[in-house]
Amino acid sequence: MNFKLTPSLLAISFSVLTLSACGSKDTVSPQSQVKPKNIIMVVADGMGPVYPSAFRYYHDNPNTPLVERTIFDKLLVGSASTYPASESGYISTSDASAAALASGVKKNNFFVTDSAASATALAAGIKTYNGAIGIDQQKKAHLTVLEWAKSIGKTTGIAVTSQIVHATPASYIAKNEKRGNYNAIADNYYDLKVDGKFKADVMLGGGTKYFIRDDRNLKDEFVAAGYQYIDQFSQLSTLDKNQPVLGLFADVALPAALDDEDKYRLKTLTQTAIKQLENDKGFFLLVEASQIDWGGHSNDIAYAMGEMDDLSATMEFLDDYVKQHPDTLVVLTADHNTGGLSIGSKNTYQWKPHFIQLLKKSPEKIASLLATNKITDQQITELLGFPITDDEVLQFNVIKLEQTLAASQQKQTPIEAEKALTKQYYKAIKNIIDLRTHSGWTTGGHTGIDVPVYAVGQGKEEFYGYQDNIEIADKLFKLMGRE
Amino acid sequence: MNFKLTPSLLAISFSVLTLSACGSKDTVSPQSQVKPKNIIMVVADGMGPVYPSAFRYYHDNPNTPLVERTIFDKLLVGSASTYPASESGYISTSDASAAALASGVKKNNFFVTDSAASATALAAGIKTYNGAIGIDQQKKAHLTVLEWAKSIGKTTGIAVTSQIVHATPASYIAKNEKRGNYNAIADNYYDLKVDGKFKADVMLGGGTKYFIRDDRNLKDEFVAAGYQYIDQFSQLSTLDKNQPVLGLFADVALPAALDDEDKYRLKTLTQTAIKQLENDKGFFLLVEASQIDWGGHSNDIAYAMGEMDDLSATMEFLDDYVKQHPDTLVVLTADHNTGGLSIGSKNTYQWKPHFIQLLKKSPEKIASLLATNKITDQQITELLGFPITDDEVLQFNVIKLEQTLAASQQKQTPIEAEKALTKQYYKAIKNIIDLRTHSGWTTGGHTGIDVPVYAVGQGKEEFYGYQDNIEIADKLFKLMGRE
Repeated sequence: MNFKLTPSLLAISFSVLTLSACGSKDTVSPQSQVKPKNIIMVVADGMGPVYPSAFRYYHDNPNTPLVERTIFDKLLVGSASTYPASESGYISTSDASAAALASGVKKNNFFVTDSAASATALAAGIKTYNGAIGIDQQKKAHLTVLEWAKSIGKTTGIAVTSQIVHATPASYIAKNEKRGNYNAIADNYYDLKVDGKFKADVMLGGGTKYFIRDDRNLKDEFVAAGYQYIDQFSQLSTLDKNQPVLGLFADVALPAALDDEDKYRLKTLTQTAIKQLENDKGFFLLVEASQIDWGGHSNDIAYAMGEMDDLSATMEFLDDYVKQHPDTLVVLTADHNTGGLSIGSKNTYQWKPHFIQLLKKSPEKIASLLATNKITDQQITELLGFPITDDEVLQFNVIKLEQTLAASQQKQTPIEAEKALTKQYYKAIKNIIDLRTHSGWTTGGHTGIDVPVYAVGQGKEEFYGYQDNIEIADKLFKLMGRE
Repeated sequence: MNFKLTPSLLAISFSVLTLSACGSKDTVSPQSQVKPKNIIMVVADGMGPVYPSAFRYYHDNPNTPLVERTIFDKLLVGSASTYPASESGYISTSDASAAALASGVKKNNFFVTDSAASATALAAGIKTYNGAIGIDQQKKAHLTVLEWAKSIGKTTGIAVTSQIVHATPASYIAKNEKRGNYNAIADNYYDLKVDGKFKADVMLGGGTKYFIRDDRNLKDEFVAAGYQYIDQFSQLSTLDKNQPVLGLFADVALPAALDDEDKYRLKTLTQTAIKQLENDKGFFLLVEASQIDWGGHSNDIAYAMGEMDDLSATMEFLDDYVKQHPDTLVVLTADHNTGGLSIGSKNTYQWKPHFIQLLKKSPEKIASLLATNKITDQQITELLGFPITDDEVLQFNVIKLEQTLAASQQKQTPIEAEKALTKQYYKAIKNIIDLRTHSGWTTGGHTGIDVPVYAVGQGKEEFYGYQDNIEIADKLFKLMGRE
């Protein structure tokens, strides 16, 4: 680390950016005459192109002869590359990239992006290093489309299923050198302003622990500043439309869709956010389907399809919204692909999402119930919805014995032992589902394949065909009158 | 098998189809006023969406700060689903699919397509079973876009890097219940006619053994019927423009691009085919980059990138051709994805195509040289272009010892032993390259992800967004005036 990134430093460089951006506001070129009043940017974290393909088959009604089209099929317009800066990592004031170039040692080796670099690309139109939130490799803060929207008088908001300070939403609002600095990012949400105003009028998602802390109570500060605070979904319908809102519904992230009481919680949050944001000058809303990525990281196809189902419902709602509000633009893309999923694997020419649909609970929940002795291994079949083989039952017994031994040898606490056992059971259950469905994975991380781009509403033509992820920000800036 | 598919039976059902299709020729709807004179359909076998993404990084010039766009990036317009018929396999005269539907047992289980079912979808606009060439599940022959083009007076051709009777080109010309019946398919190329004319005026690729056989010499028959026959690339420039041509340049398939003298052999064949086909009434040409699929099946990233390079050059040429002939339409898509490739694997956030570029010979060629003692294991480094570890050298020695033992135990002939040793070395070399580049695979077969669609020229707008593969045939029929 070569110099410390202080809020004041950021405020300075950010103000400069805002000013220079405002300066060009009036010189709108003829190409940018289309100016949607409302813009809803949806990021499906980790949703490489295989997820919407898989979802079509998962979602299909088997009682009709044809495969039904999904909302994704209806809205597809193109794709986007997602690679981060060519030198991923902190770069000092000297330009290491240029130095490497001059030395002639540069090779065709590329980084695969993380969510922070990619969200910063989508939000601010710059390539940066993995882990960076709203700043470039020289730690310079860059203006984001959300901040620009605020500066031109629109209302702004975020609605996500992760903690609201997670990499994707954070990149639209905060400036930090490291995505994991959740407390500092939460502070940014209050401290960093656009023309003296809070950046987001509506913030819905998880993350209570970052806002109500021993060292600072941001919830109280927001309330004192005029925000409504809610922490229950039931309160969503009670909100006052004329007041900004902070809604945190979980300590960290919301439950997975498969385990949530409201399986369409992203849709619910999106509906509420829009209702709160609507006004004569229009709004900018960032929606994130945060947990497709987590399903991918876990190599858990059921988890991923549950999240896709919620995203699908959200997109159906937004497509309808555009029909009623044709001056609105909705853009959906992913920040990267996660898991290296394929539908069809190990030389089998079939994919059977049927087995995912039979599940009564999420794989992780079943594993947890099994680890805490709340169900017997015979009852697994009931929760899976399909029979398992004698070998698979035996496998669960082996896991239990091995973990009992490990717990004793490693002197694990009961909580540690239970956690370790849950993890092993979870792995075994995912393996059973992969074998039944013929799902394959290459990584617990991200991959470099281009991601799909979807759009509906005013200005959607801008997103046709191939584009790099930084161009998505460029296009949104342009559609909001910033050249 | 419930009834035999005879050529005469096919000829009858096909004639009926042709007639009914011709009947509707004059009732062109207003939507289909755009009628490109020439249509070039390019099928990139096995090229799921990861291959063009990977190629961008493989192809990038590291001496420029930005990642260069590829021809694929320039021409991308949408994507296509590729699933085959819901019951993949032979279906008797009763509709088993409808029966399954009525019994209520239908589930969300899908087949992953093979090249035959998918090429039949792209050629004839029907869903059929894996293995079917130009026929449906009831073995009914269907009219293809190539046949339709011929029936309306256009010249027609195929240019491929596989044997010309392989599943993809075969589906545009032949009718057979099983893709592996190469001799029968070759017979079809001569025997089945459209309005008394041969279906293809230009046929370029591999497959001599299927045309010059003990039981029938189709080459002589074609020559007697007025075709020029060539079997060397050097003869391509000597062709008479006024005569049809059969050019077979290999016993089965052409060599892989990496091992071919002409690394851009698909481009060369495509250029020649177009030159031969050009005429006042226009032409229909099927081009197939046949071997991307084979790179995928072998989980050989170098092989696949070599084929992508040839396809890229071919598409660059076609893009230029459209500039000079704006009444031409070029459509490129894949029949399916192969290999479940990902760029970035096993939790590593990097992809390093650099190591592929260093290769002096193809991985299979290096394996073969090693197995036949033409190089020492120390010389591997030279041909790979990068050093290998001591453990990797040891691994090659272990392979040799194990294979020597297996050859003795299983009483292998020297040729069998050499083949087995090559296979093991090939596997080890691919593994080394995957480890260096961080490439991952989930299967030696196909996967169900949607494939990209590219288009340039007159009528390209028809292919924007998502479509099913059968709609690509529908659109081409429409653009050629068949409703």
